[in-house]
Amino acid sequence: MKAVVTIVGLGLMGGSLGMALRQGRLCREVIGVVRRPEVIDQALELEAIDWGTTDLARGVAEADLVVLATPVRTILAQLRQLGPHLRPGAIVTDMGSTKSAIMQAMAALPPYVQPVGSHPMCGKEVAGISAAEPTLYQGATWVVTPLERSSPAAVATIRSLAKSVGARPLTLEPDRHDRLVAAISHVPYLLAVALVALAEEVGSEDDQVWRLAASGFRDTSRLAVSDVTMMLDILMTNPRYVAALLRCVSARAEEFANLLTQADESRLRAALEQAAQRRGNMYMEMTKPQ
Amino acid sequence: MKAVVTIVGLGLMGGSLGMALRQGRLCREVIGVVRRPEVIDQALELEAIDWGTTDLARGVAEADLVVLATPVRTILAQLRQLGPHLRPGAIVTDMGSTKSAIMQAMAALPPYVQPVGSHPMCGKEVAGISAAEPTLYQGATWVVTPLERSSPAAVATIRSLAKSVGARPLTLEPDRHDRLVAAISHVPYLLAVALVALAEEVGSEDDQVWRLAASGFRDTSRLAVSDVTMMLDILMTNPRYVAALLRCVSARAEEFANLLTQADESRLRAALEQAAQRRGNMYMEMTKPQ
Repeated sequence: MKAVVTIVGLGLMGGSLGMALRQGRLCREVIGVVRRPEVIDQALELEAIDWGTTDLARGVAEADLVVLATPVRTILAQLRQLGPHLRPGAIVTDMGSTKSAIMQAMAALPPYVQPVGSHPMCGKEVAGISAAEPTLYQGATWVVTPLERSSPAAVATIRSLAKSVGARPLTLEPDRHDRLVAAISHVPYLLAVALVALAEEVGSEDDQVWRLAASGFRDTSRLAVSDVTMMLDILMTNPRYVAALLRCVSARAEEFANLLTQADESRLRAALEQAAQRRGNMYMEMTKPQ
Repeated sequence: MKAVVTIVGLGLMGGSLGMALRQGRLCREVIGVVRRPEVIDQALELEAIDWGTTDLARGVAEADLVVLATPVRTILAQLRQLGPHLRPGAIVTDMGSTKSAIMQAMAALPPYVQPVGSHPMCGKEVAGISAAEPTLYQGATWVVTPLERSSPAAVATIRSLAKSVGARPLTLEPDRHDRLVAAISHVPYLLAVALVALAEEVGSEDDQVWRLAASGFRDTSRLAVSDVTMMLDILMTNPRYVAALLRCVSARAEEFANLLTQADESRLRAALEQAAQRRGNMYMEMTKPQ
């Protein structure tokens, strides 16, 4: 790409993208827009940007491609104010973890810019640019959600951006994306939270519980340390699917409890075997060629 | 220890214990009792035993210490047949993941032997002696559950056994153990199963779900690949606590779904923050000195 790329928000996702683009010389220039000025120095040191600013209007003025890499509701706010500052023909994308609300806000951008949503499926529980790494996107699925108004060229640019940093683009409708990520990301997060809450409840009566927690608990509860503000943005912009699928899991847990109470071993065995087999096959599914 | 130790069942747990004892020359002799004769050769090659047999009676005849390292309901069956074959003064322990049912069965052992329950808190999803390693117990909490009839010397021997392989003994009542492990091990397993079942349900309508699953899903669902027969033994011998705590988690998930539906962000935030903080502190709790 010969593009000037402006990344708004240099946390884990934005910082990693900047490092991949700039260190790989994958575009003409990387500009960073941040809230806290001290992050500019850190980003320069990490070779994540060519230059940075805290002024959104100034940062996006020359951009061929603007990538919003802030939390979801900050993206929504930025989309409302961004329009007048973009140059005609600029492509606007984002890295937000839910897509329906963002795509609605993108639809309201001026007609002379090209909005295309995106969501790279990677991340860590640690946030911030200090956790950023240029290889973060390698091998990750990168969901691309165009609008009807998005030009094929703009969509192709976002798919190229994903490929250039080692990710595998996958075009999906926003609503479909939101349902799928509710199942494999947002509900797992809330279950991890529920599990920690259970251990805390049990631990309030018997604090030896913490000494018994081994690797199984550690992994199952790991997501509970995710950044709360980021996760609230995600949950509050995907409430319908998350609530519906959470109720499915809750019903399933209730069913397991009933099978145990009734000592119905054969039905329990069938459920456990199906899950073991499905989970065992999963890595194959996750890595199968497109 | 100058003891002759017989380990019944050379899977991950028994095999690892044998390797630690024999390779560290921590006892006089390690005898292995297995179901499948080919495991004897494998155990000899791994230096997990001095000699092995498929004959339980013969394997335990000379033992000062018998360690039952089979699945929980196999332990229960073995405890019923073991008595007449033990020499007077022999100590009998086990490595089963639930303790109430096992301790009841141990109470019925002949008066001339010393039963003491135990449960080392470690493990992997992979089963079998090929996954065994002599360092498996290092740093792990090793729960010791004596009976009233257990002599202080027998309890001290089991605590020494745990320490000799690098574990930290923790004496608990069987019922208390079963409630705590329900919270931090058995319920997390069933939640992982429920999560895989949810993804499969969603995936049956839209198989792109598997391409979106990233590290968060992988870790949260990891326990679902645990050995089903082993897990059923555990669940069916701890049904009361598992069912009760599973219902707590189910109610919590339902509550989260309601907060989302009502867009009650502040109550949701409070729950997420409490869990993030608690989980963040956990490693400290898990490693704090006794």
